[in-house]
Amino acid sequence: MKRHLALFATCSLGLSGPATQADTPVSGATTKAQTAGPVYTAQGRLIWPERYREWIFLSSGIDMSYRDGGAMARSAFDNVFAEPTAYREFVRTGTWPDRTALVLEVRGATGTGSINKQGKFQTGNVTAVEVHVKDTKRFPGGWAFFAFQGTAPAQQIPKSADCYSCHQQHAAVDTTFVQFYPTLLGIATQKGTLSPAYQP
Amino acid sequence: MKRHLALFATCSLGLSGPATQADTPVSGATTKAQTAGPVYTAQGRLIWPERYREWIFLSSGIDMSYRDGGAMARSAFDNVFAEPTAYREFVRTGTWPDRTALVLEVRGATGTGSINKQGKFQTGNVTAVEVHVKDTKRFPGGWAFFAFQGTAPAQQIPKSADCYSCHQQHAAVDTTFVQFYPTLLGIATQKGTLSPAYQP
Repeated sequence: MKRHLALFATCSLGLSGPATQADTPVSGATTKAQTAGPVYTAQGRLIWPERYREWIFLSSGIDMSYRDGGAMARSAFDNVFAEPTAYREFVRTGTWPDRTALVLEVRGATGTGSINKQGKFQTGNVTAVEVHVKDTKRFPGGWAFFAFQGTAPAQQIPKSADCYSCHQQHAAVDTTFVQFYPTLLGIATQKGTLSPAYQP
Repeated sequence: MKRHLALFATCSLGLSGPATQADTPVSGATTKAQTAGPVYTAQGRLIWPERYREWIFLSSGIDMSYRDGGAMARSAFDNVFAEPTAYREFVRTGTWPDRTALVLEVRGATGTGSINKQGKFQTGNVTAVEVHVKDTKRFPGGWAFFAFQGTAPAQQIPKSADCYSCHQQHAAVDTTFVQFYPTLLGIATQKGTLSPAYQP
């Protein structure tokens, strides 16, 4: 399955593999310190952001696509989370500081369960986790995408992938799709940090 | 419009008024201390949980309903957030401590905007905010619902409203709809805190 969608532009390259994994581990919530910013292996792979579900929620979408035609192979929600230190800087300044990390989680959608009769809710089936990292010392252009397969350290998605050019061309703020994060869009508008190329 | 839905059972009573309001204020994020637990006026109204968007995200749904028939008057996402102290206790124990507060935010859904071609994302139009509070010294049965109209302190929804009986009968954990919060459902299952009456 290839997906062409999401609250940030999921690279089809990044999601072409078998990314299905167990639900997000949160059991360490009370014992481990929260990591501010991305951490890498010696080989430059990004370490799994174990506690991202405790980061700041930016927004959700369902079955989004930036391309015409072709229904989704299966219905899914996208959830986006910002590392809290970066979020607070965004609230203060209207843009992202260096060492920002944003997580996109893709999760199954179903209408069937418990007493629900209409609409859809999120399931325990996480089918993809991607991270968008700002690290100006490390990445030309400042930002890089990583697609996790399970919780093993993730390789950077190559700069030739179309997620980079799409974000460069269409993102509301600093290559990030703030146009889909309603609480941040107002802040960026107010602080005058919207990209000149951005069209609402 | 009456809605009969949501990730926790929105009382139609609570949502029958004109609840449309401006987007959530988050500009105080860097300057104000986070409140742990509910705060009331002298008259027993619940104070607006100003920073709930920085609480822990539990899940989203779209156009959910617990009743048959009748499409939604307009498409909407539900987002649920838990006050962080209560969340950490849930992770540790599998259930909610006293003075838990959960927020249900109902927010517009649209497919039209920016480069999106399919699916839906969330808008800046918040149409309802309800809070589910556990406060055993204050409420018989331990829990109470409050429906905000804007940010003014909210009156408790009367105990005769069907949200109370529905949550009592169908909730997975301690009158809360953990069956729709996938990261918590696994914890409750593991810790054996699911309600005896709960049917998956």
